Amino acid sequence: MQEQAFIDKLFHAHRDARRIPSPSAVCNWLDGLLKVLFPELADHRYASRRELEQHYRQLKLDLFTLLETMAERLPKTAAELEMAFLERLPTVHALLLLDAEAILAGDPAAVDKTEVIRTYPGFRAIAVYRLAHEFFQLGVPLIPRILTEHVHSLSGIDIHPGAAIGERFCIDHGTGVVIGETVHIGNDVKIYQGVTLGALSVTKEMAQTKRHPTIQDRVVIYSGATILGGNTVIGHDSIIGGNVWLTQSVPPYSRVYYEGYVRQKVHS
Amino acid sequence: MQEQAFIDKLFHAHRDARRIPSPSAVCNWLDGLLKVLFPELADHRYASRRELEQHYRQLKLDLFTLLETMAERLPKTAAELEMAFLERLPTVHALLLLDAEAILAGDPAAVDKTEVIRTYPGFRAIAVYRLAHEFFQLGVPLIPRILTEHVHSLSGIDIHPGAAIGERFCIDHGTGVVIGETVHIGNDVKIYQGVTLGALSVTKEMAQTKRHPTIQDRVVIYSGATILGGNTVIGHDSIIGGNVWLTQSVPPYSRVYYEGYVRQKVHS
Amino acid sequence: MQEQAFIDKLFHAHRDARRIPSPSAVCNWLDGLLKVLFPELADHRYASRRELEQHYRQLKLDLFTLLETMAERLPKTAAELEMAFLERLPTVHALLLLDAEAILAGDPAAVDKTEVIRTYPGFRAIAVYRLAHEFFQLGVPLIPRILTEHVHSLSGIDIHPGAAIGERFCIDHGTGVVIGETVHIGNDVKIYQGVTLGALSVTKEMAQTKRHPTIQDRVVIYSGATILGGNTVIGHDSIIGGNVWLTQSVPPYSRVYYEGYVRQKVHS
Amino acid sequence: MQEQAFIDKLFHAHRDARRIPSPSAVCNWLDGLLKVLFPELADHRYASRRELEQHYRQLKLDLFTLLETMAERLPKTAAELEMAFLERLPTVHALLLLDAEAILAGDPAAVDKTEVIRTYPGFRAIAVYRLAHEFFQLGVPLIPRILTEHVHSLSGIDIHPGAAIGERFCIDHGTGVVIGETVHIGNDVKIYQGVTLGALSVTKEMAQTKRHPTIQDRVVIYSGATILGGNTVIGHDSIIGGNVWLTQSVPPYSRVYYEGYVRQKVHS
Amino acid sequence: MQEQAFIDKLFHAHRDARRIPSPSAVCNWLDGLLKVLFPELADHRYASRRELEQHYRQLKLDLFTLLETMAERLPKTAAELEMAFLERLPTVHALLLLDAEAILAGDPAAVDKTEVIRTYPGFRAIAVYRLAHEFFQLGVPLIPRILTEHVHSLSGIDIHPGAAIGERFCIDHGTGVVIGETVHIGNDVKIYQGVTLGALSVTKEMAQTKRHPTIQDRVVIYSGATILGGNTVIGHDSIIGGNVWLTQSVPPYSRVYYEGYVRQKVHS
Amino acid sequence: MQEQAFIDKLFHAHRDARRIPSPSAVCNWLDGLLKVLFPELADHRYASRRELEQHYRQLKLDLFTLLETMAERLPKTAAELEMAFLERLPTVHALLLLDAEAILAGDPAAVDKTEVIRTYPGFRAIAVYRLAHEFFQLGVPLIPRILTEHVHSLSGIDIHPGAAIGERFCIDHGTGVVIGETVHIGNDVKIYQGVTLGALSVTKEMAQTKRHPTIQDRVVIYSGATILGGNTVIGHDSIIGGNVWLTQSVPPYSRVYYEGYVRQKVHS
Repeated sequence: MQEQAFIDKLFHAHRDARRIPSPSAVCNWLDGLLKVLFPELADHRYASRRELEQHYRQLKLDLFTLLETMAERLPKTAAELEMAFLERLPTVHALLLLDAEAILAGDPAAVDKTEVIRTYPGFRAIAVYRLAHEFFQLGVPLIPRILTEHVHSLSGIDIHPGAAIGERFCIDHGTGVVIGETVHIGNDVKIYQGVTLGALSVTKEMAQTKRHPTIQDRVVIYSGATILGGNTVIGHDSIIGGNVWLTQSVPPYSRVYYEGYVRQKVHS
Repeated sequence: MQEQAFIDKLFHAHRDARRIPSPSAVCNWLDGLLKVLFPELADHRYASRRELEQHYRQLKLDLFTLLETMAERLPKTAAELEMAFLERLPTVHALLLLDAEAILAGDPAAVDKTEVIRTYPGFRAIAVYRLAHEFFQLGVPLIPRILTEHVHSLSGIDIHPGAAIGERFCIDHGTGVVIGETVHIGNDVKIYQGVTLGALSVTKEMAQTKRHPTIQDRVVIYSGATILGGNTVIGHDSIIGGNVWLTQSVPPYSRVYYEGYVRQKVHS
Repeated sequence: MQEQAFIDKLFHAHRDARRIPSPSAVCNWLDGLLKVLFPELADHRYASRRELEQHYRQLKLDLFTLLETMAERLPKTAAELEMAFLERLPTVHALLLLDAEAILAGDPAAVDKTEVIRTYPGFRAIAVYRLAHEFFQLGVPLIPRILTEHVHSLSGIDIHPGAAIGERFCIDHGTGVVIGETVHIGNDVKIYQGVTLGALSVTKEMAQTKRHPTIQDRVVIYSGATILGGNTVIGHDSIIGGNVWLTQSVPPYSRVYYEGYVRQKVHS
Repeated sequence: MQEQAFIDKLFHAHRDARRIPSPSAVCNWLDGLLKVLFPELADHRYASRRELEQHYRQLKLDLFTLLETMAERLPKTAAELEMAFLERLPTVHALLLLDAEAILAGDPAAVDKTEVIRTYPGFRAIAVYRLAHEFFQLGVPLIPRILTEHVHSLSGIDIHPGAAIGERFCIDHGTGVVIGETVHIGNDVKIYQGVTLGALSVTKEMAQTKRHPTIQDRVVIYSGATILGGNTVIGHDSIIGGNVWLTQSVPPYSRVYYEGYVRQKVHS
Repeated sequence: MQEQAFIDKLFHAHRDARRIPSPSAVCNWLDGLLKVLFPELADHRYASRRELEQHYRQLKLDLFTLLETMAERLPKTAAELEMAFLERLPTVHALLLLDAEAILAGDPAAVDKTEVIRTYPGFRAIAVYRLAHEFFQLGVPLIPRILTEHVHSLSGIDIHPGAAIGERFCIDHGTGVVIGETVHIGNDVKIYQGVTLGALSVTKEMAQTKRHPTIQDRVVIYSGATILGGNTVIGHDSIIGGNVWLTQSVPPYSRVYYEGYVRQKVHS
Repeated sequence: MQEQAFIDKLFHAHRDARRIPSPSAVCNWLDGLLKVLFPELADHRYASRRELEQHYRQLKLDLFTLLETMAERLPKTAAELEMAFLERLPTVHALLLLDAEAILAGDPAAVDKTEVIRTYPGFRAIAVYRLAHEFFQLGVPLIPRILTEHVHSLSGIDIHPGAAIGERFCIDHGTGVVIGETVHIGNDVKIYQGVTLGALSVTKEMAQTKRHPTIQDRVVIYSGATILGGNTVIGHDSIIGGNVWLTQSVPPYSRVYYEGYVRQKVHS
């Protein structure tokens, strides 16, 4: 009968499916790593250095196991990729501490670094992006995207793991932020909720081209602004106002504001 | 004393509350169903067809139990509604595979169908909407809304289960998308993050009227666009640019772009 | 070797970290409290008043324990703060029932209060804000922010716990809403998705000043509107249209609409 | 077919079964109570008196709930029985501390009271018996037997909850000990593994009669001894040697030894 | 170093180990089956026949999976063995209900069948033996022994799954009972704690011979009795007294009592 | 009131209690260790040597943590004791493999080594005894006794961790076996269920003396035998029959049998 045929179809799809790392395994690994990297996120206090080291080794092993799951699709062996990722980890950790300091310095409502690391979705999104970006650089499939979509779900902030982002990056509030795969962002950039750094138009043929904008150092982009196009460059030390819509480059030190509000009708 | 009175008040509210399906039970059921429908989402590999069939039967039983919980508010018996839903499931499954293919075909950053089904919030939101819509059509209360708000929480995409959406529907990024109860969307439509398909104004009296727009086949709506009103029809093969604000119909093959950016002040 | 040095560094950071309430403990407490306050959210039916009272006492004890964790940073003893919070709880509960009624009255798609309380992210965000605001008023550190960021993650609605919000507040859809620390909102206000009530510009020095707008009674603000600045006052009984950008006050009974749509190019 | 008929039969049995307290619920309650009564058994250190009191109240509530499950079979209301049990608890607790001291005083291998309470199966069996006996005295069905069979499974010591046992009772090693329903044991009695205090013969008609022996104060009974019969009285200050088989009374200060060993053949 | 060599050795042992069904999986399956067969043991009330049937199917599937784990050592296919076991299940179930009735009829302390099935270790041991015996008869390796040793651990009753036991079998108290592999027991037999039905001497060469006694119908064996040898037959309607040591046959209607007690010294 | 006073009393006892390793932590550690040492007991197959090594390290750390819990009562530092225990582990492991082989060789019903290690309570008891004995030798308090009482509860076999037991030790069936603290057992000894190796009489003053018997090499002791006294030596190559009661030494090559059965009355 029809139900049996449907179950057959599902079973064949399951039987033929490629092995991928278990979704919950990837997210648990990420969660564990963040808790080791940042005491502010930990539920547990390590009784000894040795306990922490043991936890760290477990995370290494779990990463190896996740990579092994899709060994046939990896550009190198799981062991080489694990080692390469871990060699980068102290650098990523140092970058994230700089990000946290920058967020604290820039937000009047932020009380201390503990609050930033513990509660700011912008920090969480940057942290996961920086880890995912390392896997992306190493050519690991699927895991970078699982990581960034996981934090997208939690924070509403959608940073493609392929984007290149400089030091001391701040995202405030963050819901609705979209940062595309070929975006380049310099140092000391700050963006607010609802900012899109996207493509002008989208076709499958564009996969290998730079189709998203470049943001130079010390740019601030206020909420709801949209900046599109692979040739669009926002010059350093510029400020892009809220709700601005930009599809062409602006030179350094620009101030771009949306003036739409003067055309509102006010009836009282 | 005051605390005792407050506890009394809470207890009376609990005692008098209508029975509703347990929130976590509904979400667990959904999760289990998605893992059976899509191997890309599964944590587990079925050792045999029989194991999958057993799992499928369990999902049927769990659905029956959820429906039974609110038997007195159902338009038919729980058994009839369960059967009606399950008869539609192969069709919904086929529609979702078409959605996944359309997303893959349209996104340069998408690597393969596994990545789309596994990680794209747009796909997740459509999948849950299509399942919720079936319950809505059957007149089942509460469950459709629990389902769509669950995926809204995960994806930032808010599709009312009453909306009518055609084949091969794509949502990219998706955070902030709102699709109202009486929206009609044709085939091969694509929308981006922050798009609102809403009502012009909102009063309780409008509950039974069509108050949200109609989008015909092959329309693309870029990020941040807002389209409002029950009489607003976007003609087929139109493109609605980012941040556009539309409260009236446009004919087929329209290209509607927001020109606001020419009115930005640039100081350098 | 390098790895050992990195582990040392992490261990020192963990050893020196200030004790903070366990993240999952705070969220579990919140979850439990909401389930006691609203039968619509409960998984469990209390067999007797005594069982509910026992659960209530457990929540009190858990709150005390959370507060005790950071005793050295509290403005009063944990016991005093617990008592002060609990004395306010019946009032907060009554306010939330008013919020739920207002949401039901204003949304044509809403079927009954159960659906509103159970599934509306806007109600969830307001509920958590009102609880967090009490802790904020009492000077409790960190917990208010943990609570509001938790619901921000679930709903995409970011209300700072310091904001002051009147009775019968409605948020519809809600994704992307941002309400800043020094916002004042009157009674019977309704806002839609993507509304920002923010600051004109942001520097750390502004921490103690009113830098976010005031919204008077009976104002409606449609989706995507942005209202900025500490001196901006939206007069009572005003309507702010979708996508409006406002950085100056408007008088009572204003109707402010965005007319941008007339300047769209339509090619057919 | 046959399987369907069997499933029908099982379902009818389930449908018609009387409600009894969930087995795991009874054992969890016991476990929790023992951990409150004896810090030596606890996994957890109470941070405050209030936390312990809260835990104590929860145990009271859980007991009430267990009793309520079989309300129609109780001799009084669940609330009355709960109160009656709890009024006896301090006395039972004091008796158990005396038991622990007596075990420590009598066993050369015992190091301290912590070891006795934490690890001695004899102590565990006595503790559960004394609690079960209180329920038996109150006429509560089923629970006394669930408790004593639970500890029988853990310790190999089978004490019927109806037995009457005096102060400072010691069981050493204990596996295989059987103490029947109508046994009377005085103060300061000590018994070893494999001792049976049973009935001479067993027929259903004997249910209301005293069919098991009486052991007076300060008697020691070594391993493997068997003492049978409702009229058998072991006089105070007697010692019953290992493997002795007794079906008649002995006067006070008796020394009863088994001489069987002289009749062994030794071939070398 | 030495530790590395030890870890190597352990790893090789793990790598080379034969696959066996997971211990906890076997015990969970048993537990689930007993709860379906006997409502007295269930934690859960089935809301519908369908729910029970679903649970039953799951148990079938789990059995199949357990058997499949060691497919290469099975005498038939896993599917054939599963079917053969399940065909016997109604018969085993009927036998167990007879056992429960016999225990109730014979024990003055037993209140009702619920108490017997729920709390009597003798019933539990017989139930597991009867299930294990079916697997033994089918030639399934390892599982029969895992089952009987599991209940041995809980009850102190050690019945080899190869033993042949008739209808209405009672074990009272039970701790220390040992029933060997080639024992034959008739109908309506009752035994008490500490009874051994064993071999006279034990060498590996005896594996295929009948080396344990035969007990005919309606025999009662009191506590601590030891009956040894493959040629030893206890004639029907006999009573074997407590602590009796028997290595030879006795005719029907025998009364065998231990008289050792007359040789005790009594000093008063 | 009285209840408050009782809660006070309990709280003071909890507050003043010495810290001891959490009961469940000790048992979980033991369980994990046995699963690493014996693949026959494992639920899990190690995917790589590295995973096993990681698990092994975790067990080391957990042991350290358990020991640290009672640091002030240890004869050496926790680190020294952990190291000393682990240095002995390969030797203990090798002894246990010899025990398993001896059990297999001696039991006609045993099929293979997997069955022995997986299901025989005698093997389980010896394994835990040998591990506990190492802690006892190192002077670690409480843990040895927690371990042996845990396996006593599972197997009904009570071996004091202080006993000294040679190579290739077999216990068959085992329920009711008691082996005292100062027992010495040679190589190739085999004992059956219900055997007691105990003290003649018991007073606290005897704590430092040898009060339990010595069993030389290649002795077999059948079920229910009792051997008592610190000066009792069973000469090598002796056989002690079932139910024998011995309080004096026997020379090598003795055969000691219980003849009690000739004095039974048989009425037919």
